Amino acid sequence: MKFNFPALQVALDVTDDRVAEDLALKCWVDDHVWIEAGTPLIKSVGVGIIGRLRRLLPKAVIFADMKCMDAGFVEAELASVSGANLMSVLGVANDATILEAIRACRKYGTGVVVDLISISNPLQRAFEVQGLGVDMVCFHTGIDVQKSMGISAYEGLIEYISKACKSLNIPVAVAGGITLDKVRPLMDAGVKVIVVGSAITKSSDPRETTIRFVREILR
Amino acid sequence: MKFNFPALQVALDVTDDRVAEDLALKCWVDDHVWIEAGTPLIKSVGVGIIGRLRRLLPKAVIFADMKCMDAGFVEAELASVSGANLMSVLGVANDATILEAIRACRKYGTGVVVDLISISNPLQRAFEVQGLGVDMVCFHTGIDVQKSMGISAYEGLIEYISKACKSLNIPVAVAGGITLDKVRPLMDAGVKVIVVGSAITKSSDPRETTIRFVREILR
Repeated sequence: MKFNFPALQVALDVTDDRVAEDLALKCWVDDHVWIEAGTPLIKSVGVGIIGRLRRLLPKAVIFADMKCMDAGFVEAELASVSGANLMSVLGVANDATILEAIRACRKYGTGVVVDLISISNPLQRAFEVQGLGVDMVCFHTGIDVQKSMGISAYEGLIEYISKACKSLNIPVAVAGGITLDKVRPLMDAGVKVIVVGSAITKSSDPRETTIRFVREILR
Repeated sequence: MKFNFPALQVALDVTDDRVAEDLALKCWVDDHVWIEAGTPLIKSVGVGIIGRLRRLLPKAVIFADMKCMDAGFVEAELASVSGANLMSVLGVANDATILEAIRACRKYGTGVVVDLISISNPLQRAFEVQGLGVDMVCFHTGIDVQKSMGISAYEGLIEYISKACKSLNIPVAVAGGITLDKVRPLMDAGVKVIVVGSAITKSSDPRETTIRFVREILR
């Protein structure tokens, strides 16, 4: 599958399938918005949610945030067969797992994204997994780290991301506590996919907020 | 909850819920056997499978292999509310995530197990997470690494595990390609929980094989 960039990836960071489906219907805006089934959502209700989102939004790019750590082939196949266009593997996983995920995804035409969460040198790992053949990397500050470190979790982020975007040959996504004001600096740094969860899903009007993010990305 | 040691943890390493339920019914042998809902099973059908296993086996110790990497509270709560007695967090996760999982598990009386998969110095990390307050650690060679490295994935394992069991204050579990002949050396090294997947689930008679493992553990 060919993907259009830049994109806003809306993370359905809830555990109830009906709430997730409603949010997806509210937030999808053609090719500009990718719909992410978050890890807790998948663990809560299973990958069947991806099929249900697919039926609701036949043309949408759907991202399965599997955060695969082992059994790469099985998990990538689960996501692919359910109708996902992209799925994630953890960068902390062994190369063997990433290669197994790639093998399954190639079979189904699914894109493989490596989530660089909790890696002390994410850029070095990004180069390694680019070499393994993944389609995209995601620089990601986890929700628990955001909560425990506050704003300091983002210190030096833009310069680091800018360096990553300049030196890697695959598209870069960024995730973790992104608010509207952070979008333009990240885009200017070369980021192709902006992942947003709570800033949209917990806003009073998720559709309006999504539109504001899309406009900021397309500006 | 108090747990009885030693125990055999049978990993339901399948993705179909009916197959998983049948295997659980076949393999449970009172306190000696813990039933593990594997990560791909949870991602396939959701944590609801834990509640269904609970209804089938009201007294069984049920382990939710969540392999939590982020959103520690939410994922630990999902597992706990579904009826799990134990749940896993990844050792590669940030301390903040492990602490969040512990916080939720304390609320529900669920045990927290740290899965040390893909850590270059697992014993050092085991000490760290013991300090954070987790209930157990699991030395784990992933399925993809087993496949890619073969027997060399286990080189020096027994000596390493023996050292870990002697120096840690919390129970140690071991997982990854364990066959019947490996059980006694691991028990002698001080391991409290032996995790077995395919050697039981892919055997021609899972109940008979389970009984053989239980006898080896109790020997």
